[in-house]
Amino acid sequence: MKIAYLGLGIMGSGMVGNLLQAGHSVTVWNRTPDRCTPWVEKGATQANTPAQAVANAEIVMYCLSNEEAIADTVFGEDGILSGVHQGQIAIDMSTVHPNTSRREAVAYAEKGIEFIDAPVFGSKNESAAGGLWIVVGGKKEVFEKVKPILEPLSETIHYMGETGMGATMKLVGNAVVISQIEALGEAMILAKKAGLNPQDVLDVLHVTDFKSPIFDGMGSTLVKRDFSTSFALKWLLKDANLIAQLAQDNNSPIPAIALARETVKAAVNHGWSEENASAAIKALELQAGIEIK
Amino acid sequence: MKIAYLGLGIMGSGMVGNLLQAGHSVTVWNRTPDRCTPWVEKGATQANTPAQAVANAEIVMYCLSNEEAIADTVFGEDGILSGVHQGQIAIDMSTVHPNTSRREAVAYAEKGIEFIDAPVFGSKNESAAGGLWIVVGGKKEVFEKVKPILEPLSETIHYMGETGMGATMKLVGNAVVISQIEALGEAMILAKKAGLNPQDVLDVLHVTDFKSPIFDGMGSTLVKRDFSTSFALKWLLKDANLIAQLAQDNNSPIPAIALARETVKAAVNHGWSEENASAAIKALELQAGIEIK
Amino acid sequence: MKIAYLGLGIMGSGMVGNLLQAGHSVTVWNRTPDRCTPWVEKGATQANTPAQAVANAEIVMYCLSNEEAIADTVFGEDGILSGVHQGQIAIDMSTVHPNTSRREAVAYAEKGIEFIDAPVFGSKNESAAGGLWIVVGGKKEVFEKVKPILEPLSETIHYMGETGMGATMKLVGNAVVISQIEALGEAMILAKKAGLNPQDVLDVLHVTDFKSPIFDGMGSTLVKRDFSTSFALKWLLKDANLIAQLAQDNNSPIPAIALARETVKAAVNHGWSEENASAAIKALELQAGIEIK
Amino acid sequence: MKIAYLGLGIMGSGMVGNLLQAGHSVTVWNRTPDRCTPWVEKGATQANTPAQAVANAEIVMYCLSNEEAIADTVFGEDGILSGVHQGQIAIDMSTVHPNTSRREAVAYAEKGIEFIDAPVFGSKNESAAGGLWIVVGGKKEVFEKVKPILEPLSETIHYMGETGMGATMKLVGNAVVISQIEALGEAMILAKKAGLNPQDVLDVLHVTDFKSPIFDGMGSTLVKRDFSTSFALKWLLKDANLIAQLAQDNNSPIPAIALARETVKAAVNHGWSEENASAAIKALELQAGIEIK
Repeated sequence: MKIAYLGLGIMGSGMVGNLLQAGHSVTVWNRTPDRCTPWVEKGATQANTPAQAVANAEIVMYCLSNEEAIADTVFGEDGILSGVHQGQIAIDMSTVHPNTSRREAVAYAEKGIEFIDAPVFGSKNESAAGGLWIVVGGKKEVFEKVKPILEPLSETIHYMGETGMGATMKLVGNAVVISQIEALGEAMILAKKAGLNPQDVLDVLHVTDFKSPIFDGMGSTLVKRDFSTSFALKWLLKDANLIAQLAQDNNSPIPAIALARETVKAAVNHGWSEENASAAIKALELQAGIEIK
Repeated sequence: MKIAYLGLGIMGSGMVGNLLQAGHSVTVWNRTPDRCTPWVEKGATQANTPAQAVANAEIVMYCLSNEEAIADTVFGEDGILSGVHQGQIAIDMSTVHPNTSRREAVAYAEKGIEFIDAPVFGSKNESAAGGLWIVVGGKKEVFEKVKPILEPLSETIHYMGETGMGATMKLVGNAVVISQIEALGEAMILAKKAGLNPQDVLDVLHVTDFKSPIFDGMGSTLVKRDFSTSFALKWLLKDANLIAQLAQDNNSPIPAIALARETVKAAVNHGWSEENASAAIKALELQAGIEIK
Repeated sequence: MKIAYLGLGIMGSGMVGNLLQAGHSVTVWNRTPDRCTPWVEKGATQANTPAQAVANAEIVMYCLSNEEAIADTVFGEDGILSGVHQGQIAIDMSTVHPNTSRREAVAYAEKGIEFIDAPVFGSKNESAAGGLWIVVGGKKEVFEKVKPILEPLSETIHYMGETGMGATMKLVGNAVVISQIEALGEAMILAKKAGLNPQDVLDVLHVTDFKSPIFDGMGSTLVKRDFSTSFALKWLLKDANLIAQLAQDNNSPIPAIALARETVKAAVNHGWSEENASAAIKALELQAGIEIK
Repeated sequence: MKIAYLGLGIMGSGMVGNLLQAGHSVTVWNRTPDRCTPWVEKGATQANTPAQAVANAEIVMYCLSNEEAIADTVFGEDGILSGVHQGQIAIDMSTVHPNTSRREAVAYAEKGIEFIDAPVFGSKNESAAGGLWIVVGGKKEVFEKVKPILEPLSETIHYMGETGMGATMKLVGNAVVISQIEALGEAMILAKKAGLNPQDVLDVLHVTDFKSPIFDGMGSTLVKRDFSTSFALKWLLKDANLIAQLAQDNNSPIPAIALARETVKAAVNHGWSEENASAAIKALELQAGIEIK
């Protein structure tokens, strides 16, 4: 199919690779154009503006960094909405507030375009390997139509309900992620202070019934003091802020998740925005006066 | 080998079954004696007092409910220490503060007895199936001696270091457990309030890179409103209190774990002590004004 | 002077009374018009729309409930901005986000009107008695001009800096208020559970160097189980949400204040929105399983 | 009267001065003896051991630093209990867990000695000026007997109930203190980050209905970056730990107070134990990346 893909960050790049490999004809656009080059070399077409990118596509997909990028790229001048036409389907794979998804759906509907919100779980490796977990909101029949396109990108695809429910599920999931980063940090610090060897602790966390892949992944880089970015701390803060907003909208008490947001704030204040999300644990280490290694 | 096993709660019972099946000669004791009956029927010998139980054993094992039970059964009148003799090895599988393990080690050493602390992760099912995860503190050579006895009880065995390090690892692990229960509760409440179907959310939590067996296990019973006890809430509170003490001893900041303890307190105040640990989430639901189902 | 006063809630009513008593000519407007009647009887003129209210005023003052009310009454159809003219001074005494104050300032400036944000501390009694504490943002010289009008309303007036700094100070102050309500609740519950008589505890809190008028005021009504409204719980939640937003804007970690917001959420979920802000403590009591009395 | 006073820290020294001035005959003892010298010069008699100090006293008073000091000085070799005799009255003014008070009462009763727990609020200045606030537990008639001795030390004296209720009230009060330090820190940081001048904020906190002397006192030294000790951070941590224990004993949820303890831990980990309790706020500043000044 003819697919436009906008936004070639860590996540988008992996997806474009898998769309090309699946045989689709892909037109790409990115705010900093040179990120398009490797995909053009693999057969993608490069567009100069979002509007141009989507002009001839059957499917419009994008994974943008935040609400501001949506405002620019979707709603802005030469944005997606100024280039689309009836009959297309738009798929927003960004992590945004569900109200943003709802605003997009309304705007697309006015142009006769179907829309689903389809954010993804997983980071760099899963995106490259086509092993994402996709959560979808929107009309069921539209979801069924685009499912074959999403399949080569993902390990599982979950239909969550009406427009915004994909975005909602993404934020709920990341609320768990933030909690687990906080838990890992606090527990590893306690372990170290109480005399345990951090790697031995990770070996235990690798097997018990409260194990989690995130403990394996972040734990192993943590003890090596490797904070190279797979999912940047600044995006964790962005998500923490969206989660707080969602909880506020629904008056949902989230004491521990709210607290974990404050830890992420501290880590950002320390200047670690561009490091991996696990750098949040360094803010906890500072309070403890030790390093986990 | 001749093994004395004291304490036939949910955990101890499972272990005795596997020790018998492994061909050991097992003498059992329990505070309420009738819990011994099923194991006597399967070939165990019943003792009337802890002292009597350990008199002829090569290995003395016990899994007791808390510090008070250790005080009575190990240090009390007709307790284990009054019946042991040189050359035996004692294995405390209870979840206690590492200082308790250290006091036990000293008391046993005075009688020429080796001691290891070897608490276990897993609950009812893992104990019955011989699938526990055991974490061990004490002399390495003593650990090596008893390892063959522990193997039929467990999926993995982890040597963590000197006396008390098994107990320490157990508390660190349960700190993660408490965090995960809080995270599951807060996230599921937010999901429900924001319009998601709880079972659909669990299906997502089942596959992502932040999945955890505890989310599967507790999640599925939660949505069925099944709080039948696998690991009682009162023991979660006991453990939360021990974790807080360990963190105090080491001046280790544990903000989110400390907060989760307050949730468990609330659930206990609501009268759910004997229900499953997942009943902590009901305290969160009360604050949210909804039920996850 | 000719003053328009819009918004006759608990706070606005008290201020109008004191403006009339100070000899000003006051035109009033309120969304539900019958709240104007008592003031008309005391000499105020009633307007049918915000625009009409401000038409002939020298000074335009208002104390509105939230951002939505500002959107309607200031920016909306027949709103203040549609009725004002060059040379007037507008004073927003509402508790709003400082960015709202800044938007107002810009909109007024376009019409040649000066603006200050001047929210107030104190509640029902202080407003009626002219004993408010007013915190002001805006141009210093404009502040000096309106100061004589604010004096009969207040015990003290504080100039905090440029536009938005009054609103910012209000939120910072209410962050302290929320913390103190949480502290009072947690401490009184602990006292009661540990066997102290609540009134005896309040007597101590009345004299020490950590005493506070809020402990006296809320404490005495709390032990009488009197939650009649002086400052409604729903406004406490509104303010908690604004504080969280301000902290997010500035990436300022506020762990305990964030946590207190979750308590207020819980109390609102229990249906106590219209009760006094001290009803937040009832959410804590529920977790404790006791009542402070 | 003949009074023995043991423990000449900041608090004890002030009290001894006022007892001498009230005309009592005072025998003093301190672990580091040279702290007795200034009081000997003012007429006190110095004893070599606790037992010797109390031998001829009618009233035995002490203000010791923690549970360990009580264990040594009251229960230890040559301790108070080894020197007392029937008919004396003992007054423990230390901040300890109420169970410690209860153990003392029992031990004294066995020797025919009456006991009250009478810890004090206030710090250096209040102690020196005879302006403490004393909270008393024990038999009412014993309290009435010693009241005239306590009056020159204090502004108010509060009878709280049976043995241990003075100690309980002290911990409840300090729970409020810890909450207020956390609140002051978080609010001042938010204020500073949002552009307010810290001193202007303190001026507002000085007058509103949520003002508190602690905000005036700590606030003014905070903005001067003066952390010279009036009440040492290490004692704040000690008290926070005792409060957590009291809350655990009573299964009383104290989420925000628990959280404030974690802040104090962090400050101690940064090496500020001997500075003033307000140094806890420096731990919050580190997370915020700014200083309040």
